[in-house]
Amino acid sequence: MNPTERVRAAYRAITEADRPEVWIALREEQDVLREAEALERALTEGDELPLAGLVFAVKDNIDVAGLPTTAGCPSFAYSPADSATAVRRLLDAGALVLGKTNLDQFATGLVGTRSPYGAVRHAHQPDKVSGGSSSGSAVAVALGVADFALGTDTAGSGRVPAALHGIVGLKPTLGLVPNTGVVPAARSYDCVTVFAQALPLAQRVLAVLTGPDSADPTSRTWPPDTRFAATVSRLAIPDDAGLAPLSAEATAAFHAAVATLRERGVTVERIDVRPFLDAATLLYDGALVAERYAAVGEFLEGEPAGADPTVTRIVLAARDLPAHRFAADLERLDRYRTEAAALLTGFDALLLPTTTGHPTIAEVEADPVAVNSRLGTYTNFVNLLDLAAAAVPAGTADGSPFGVSVITRAFDDQIALDLAALLTGDEPATPYPTGGTDLVVFGAHLRGQPLNHQLTDLGARFRSAVRTAPEYRMVALPTTPPKPGIVRDTTEGASLTGERWTLSSSALGAFLAGLPAPMSLGPITVDGGGQVLGFHCDPDTARDGEDITRHGSWTTYLGES
Amino acid sequence: MNPTERVRAAYRAITEADRPEVWIALREEQDVLREAEALERALTEGDELPLAGLVFAVKDNIDVAGLPTTAGCPSFAYSPADSATAVRRLLDAGALVLGKTNLDQFATGLVGTRSPYGAVRHAHQPDKVSGGSSSGSAVAVALGVADFALGTDTAGSGRVPAALHGIVGLKPTLGLVPNTGVVPAARSYDCVTVFAQALPLAQRVLAVLTGPDSADPTSRTWPPDTRFAATVSRLAIPDDAGLAPLSAEATAAFHAAVATLRERGVTVERIDVRPFLDAATLLYDGALVAERYAAVGEFLEGEPAGADPTVTRIVLAARDLPAHRFAADLERLDRYRTEAAALLTGFDALLLPTTTGHPTIAEVEADPVAVNSRLGTYTNFVNLLDLAAAAVPAGTADGSPFGVSVITRAFDDQIALDLAALLTGDEPATPYPTGGTDLVVFGAHLRGQPLNHQLTDLGARFRSAVRTAPEYRMVALPTTPPKPGIVRDTTEGASLTGERWTLSSSALGAFLAGLPAPMSLGPITVDGGGQVLGFHCDPDTARDGEDITRHGSWTTYLGES
Repeated sequence: MNPTERVRAAYRAITEADRPEVWIALREEQDVLREAEALERALTEGDELPLAGLVFAVKDNIDVAGLPTTAGCPSFAYSPADSATAVRRLLDAGALVLGKTNLDQFATGLVGTRSPYGAVRHAHQPDKVSGGSSSGSAVAVALGVADFALGTDTAGSGRVPAALHGIVGLKPTLGLVPNTGVVPAARSYDCVTVFAQALPLAQRVLAVLTGPDSADPTSRTWPPDTRFAATVSRLAIPDDAGLAPLSAEATAAFHAAVATLRERGVTVERIDVRPFLDAATLLYDGALVAERYAAVGEFLEGEPAGADPTVTRIVLAARDLPAHRFAADLERLDRYRTEAAALLTGFDALLLPTTTGHPTIAEVEADPVAVNSRLGTYTNFVNLLDLAAAAVPAGTADGSPFGVSVITRAFDDQIALDLAALLTGDEPATPYPTGGTDLVVFGAHLRGQPLNHQLTDLGARFRSAVRTAPEYRMVALPTTPPKPGIVRDTTEGASLTGERWTLSSSALGAFLAGLPAPMSLGPITVDGGGQVLGFHCDPDTARDGEDITRHGSWTTYLGES
Repeated sequence: MNPTERVRAAYRAITEADRPEVWIALREEQDVLREAEALERALTEGDELPLAGLVFAVKDNIDVAGLPTTAGCPSFAYSPADSATAVRRLLDAGALVLGKTNLDQFATGLVGTRSPYGAVRHAHQPDKVSGGSSSGSAVAVALGVADFALGTDTAGSGRVPAALHGIVGLKPTLGLVPNTGVVPAARSYDCVTVFAQALPLAQRVLAVLTGPDSADPTSRTWPPDTRFAATVSRLAIPDDAGLAPLSAEATAAFHAAVATLRERGVTVERIDVRPFLDAATLLYDGALVAERYAAVGEFLEGEPAGADPTVTRIVLAARDLPAHRFAADLERLDRYRTEAAALLTGFDALLLPTTTGHPTIAEVEADPVAVNSRLGTYTNFVNLLDLAAAAVPAGTADGSPFGVSVITRAFDDQIALDLAALLTGDEPATPYPTGGTDLVVFGAHLRGQPLNHQLTDLGARFRSAVRTAPEYRMVALPTTPPKPGIVRDTTEGASLTGERWTLSSSALGAFLAGLPAPMSLGPITVDGGGQVLGFHCDPDTARDGEDITRHGSWTTYLGES
C-alpha cells in the first residue's frame, strides 16, 4: 500500500471496528490524506524517510501540535504549540498521525477503565480490559488500525496492554526517548513506549525515537561502553515461588517460552526474583507516589470535571506524605538497585511473565485498586530499578494472549531485543544503539575460534562475513593459539575473507589496549571499495610466517591444513 | 622523619597547640607508635605503601574501628565494628590515624561552632571561626599536627575551612570515594574530602581513597570516557555581580588568582553565575533538607543530650515538609543541572572564590544561621549540581587567608587538580583517574603539530617524550598535512623519539575509529624493553616515502628539512 491507500485503510478499519472509546481525538481523514499526498511527492523526489507512510496513534498524554492534550481528563486539556519531541521525530521520519488515544487518566492505572472517555474494551474480548494505561494505543494496534502507536510506561503501561493483546510493547531505558511534551505521571520513572504487531517494526520506530534532547533534563545518551550483543546468552528466570501469581495455563505458557529459548541456545537459570517484586511496592505503597501529586495534585485538588475517582484518590492520598519518607524511600530504592544488579550479575537478562491473568471490566469495577495492582506484579519494578524491557507475545493462556518480558540492565536494550527476537522467531535486526564502530577480524577472533570471547566479552556484535579488496596477503604465524597475519600488498595480494563486528568506542579501545604484537588495527580496504577497521600484522614479523593467501580465509586454511 | 619520629612530632605538636576542642577522640600516643613500629618493619621487608608513615585525622562522622563515632553528638555515639571504607584504604596504604576530630554536629554547618565539644577556634586567629563542618580536621592540618585529614562535604564543609586556613581541600566527584561507614548528612550530596597543606599530597591521598565499593549503592566508578586533561584550557569566572558578596580586598585577591592563571596560559571568560548560586538555595530553603531529617530526625526528636540547638532547629524544621515538594525540588534541581551544563559548555572549569569573609565566633553566635549561610554562597551548589571542586589558597584578604575553588563537571576531577596546580605552582601530578591507556605518537599528533587537537579534544594527557627500541624506520609520507610513517625493521631500524599520551578507553576507540589509512595502532617496543601502543604505517604505502630514520624524530626532520 502507498501512503494514501494506507490512510484510507486505517479509516475504514476505524469505522469497521466501531470502538469510539479508543480515541480521544481522531483527526479528519482528509487532513491525514493531504499529508499522505505530500509525503508521496517527497518520496518521488527521492526523500529517504525510514517510517514513510506508516500510520500511528498517540496516547493522549503526549503532545501533538494541532490536537488538544487531555491526559484523559477533559478539564485538564490544553493545546500544545509543539509536538512532543518523540512525535516530531516520527513525523520527520515520514509517519502519519491518526489521532490521540484514550488512557487511564494521568497514566495512573494498568486497566484502561479509569477514563471519563469510557473504559477501553479489549480489542477481541470486549467484556475484558484492554490493559492500561496506554489502553487506546494498544487497541489501535491490536485492531490493525495503526501500524504502531506511542504509549507511556511508568509502572507497566506500555507492556501490560501489549501482553493482553498479543502484540509487542517496547519499554526502552529511561531517558533514551525524550519526555519533552509528555504529561508527567511520576517524572523520574516515566518512559515513552512503542506498540506494534511485530518486533522488527517496533524496533525501527524506537530507533527513530531515540536520541538526546537538550530540552529534557532526564534525557540520556547511549554510554560509550554500550553493549551491542549479549556476552553470555545466559538468562535468569523466576523459581516456582516467583511464578506463583500465574494460573496453571499461564505457568505452562511461560515454561514453553523458556523451552523455546533453550532450544535456541540460551542458557537458563532460576533465581529468586523476590527482591525485584518487593522493590515494586515502593512505586505506590511508599512515598515516591508523591511524584504523582507533584505532577497533577494541585489540579485534582480543585475537583475538576471528569476527574476519575480512583485516580483522584490515589493522587490525593499522596498529599500528606512527608518529604523525609520520600528521601528514605529513595535510599531504599538505591539499595534495591544494588541488590538487583547483584542478582543479574552473570546474566544478560531476566525473563518474566508480563502480567498476571486477564480480568473482566466488571472485575475491575468491583475492586479497582487490587485488580490493577495484580496486573503490575511483574512490571512495576522495571522503571524504578532503571531497567529496560521488551514485552512480546508467547502463546495463550486461559483464553487470552500470554506475554513475556525480557528485562535487561539500562542501555542493554539491544540485548532485550535480541532475546525477544529469538522468542518471536524474527531476524535479529540492525543494531539499535548508535555510536558503534565496525572491526574486521581474520583469525583467532572469528566465531568459533579461540579468541572470539575477547570480542563477545566486550559486547561486540557479529554483523556479516566480509571480503577485502584484492590487495592483502595472509601468513600463518607461529603463535599460540595459531594466528594469521594480514599484510597489505597491492602487487601480490588477494581478496581475503573475514568477519565484520560492531562494538562500542570503549570496547574498541579496550580491545586495542589488549592487543599483542605483532598485531595492529587500522583501516583496510574492503571489496568494492570503502574502508573498515581491521587487523594488520607487523611486516617484519610476517616475513617469518608461511604465506597462506591462496586459501582465502583462515578457516579454509585450518580446514585444509 | 621515619614513621615513629613523625608520630612523636605529631603528639608534641598537639600538646604545644593546646587546642583540645579539635579532637573528640585522640588516640594514645603509645598505640600509634606501636603501629608506626610495625609499619617500619613492613617497609624494611619491602612493602610498598603509598602513604607510609603519614599521620592523619578523621572527622568524627566517619567510622574508625576502635573509636566511637559521635557525629558531634555524645548521645549519638556508637562503636563501629569496622572502619569506613575510606579509612581502611588509608590504613592499608600505610597511613597512621591520630584520632577523631570535632565538627559541626551531624555535619550541619559551615562554621565549626555547632558542637557540644566546643567551638573549634581558627588555627591562627582564635577569636575567629575555623570554618566547618569539618572544623577539627582542617585545624589539625593547619596546625601541622596531621599531614592530612578526612572531612566530609555536603554544602562546602570540606572547602570552607580549607579556604579560611590557606590549606587545600579536595571535594571529588560524588561517589568516587565510598560513603560506607560515614554518618549521612544529606545522603545524596555527601562526599568524603581531603585536607592537606599542599596539593600534591592531597591528590595522592585522594587517589588511594577512590574506587568502587559494592557496599555503597551511591558509589561510582570512573566512566569509560573520563578526560585525563583539559581540552581547551578555558575557564569561566563570575562577572562583577557574581563577585558582589566579596570585600574589596577579597575581590582583588580573586582577580590576582585569575591573572596568575591567565599568565600561565589559561583563557578566561566572564559568565553570569547566578544560576549556580540560585541552585544553592535548594539545599536548605527547599524540601531537599528533608534528607537531613531522614538521617537523624527521629534521633533528634527524642531531645537527646548534647544536641546542638541550631542543628536541631534546622533538622526538625524539615519534619513536616511534604513529599510532593521534595519531588518538585528534585525536578527543579534537574533543570538547574541542565542550565549549569549549558553554562559550562566550552569551558573546562569554573573558578569561584571558596567563601565570603571570615567571621568571628562572636558574630556567628549572634546570628548563627545567616552568617553560616553567607559562608556557603560559593560552595552550596557544587554537590547539588554533581560537580567536583578543588579548593586552594590564593593569597590573603582582610587579614585572613583567601581561597579559590576550581569547579568542574563530574569526573573532570583531574582537570580541577591541574588548574589548581597552575595556581599553586605545583607540578601537575600523575593522573588521578584510573583506566587510561598510553599511546605513542610520532608525527602530526605531537604537541604543536597540526593534528595534536585530535588528542586534546578527546581529553588525552601528555606524559613524556619516549624513545623506541632501535628497530623502527621513519619515512616521510606525501600526505596533507605531512606525516611520518613508522615501520618496524629489526635489521635496519633505529631508535625514534615520540610522545607518550594517556587517554580513556573510549577516547582511544574514538581515535582509532577516525584513523585514516595507511596508519594503524598496535604495540611498539620502547627503549629498554616493554611495549606501548603506538602508530604503525602500512609498509606497502611506506615504500613510497622518503626514509628519514636518520633524523631520529619528526620534529628534528621538520627543523632540518
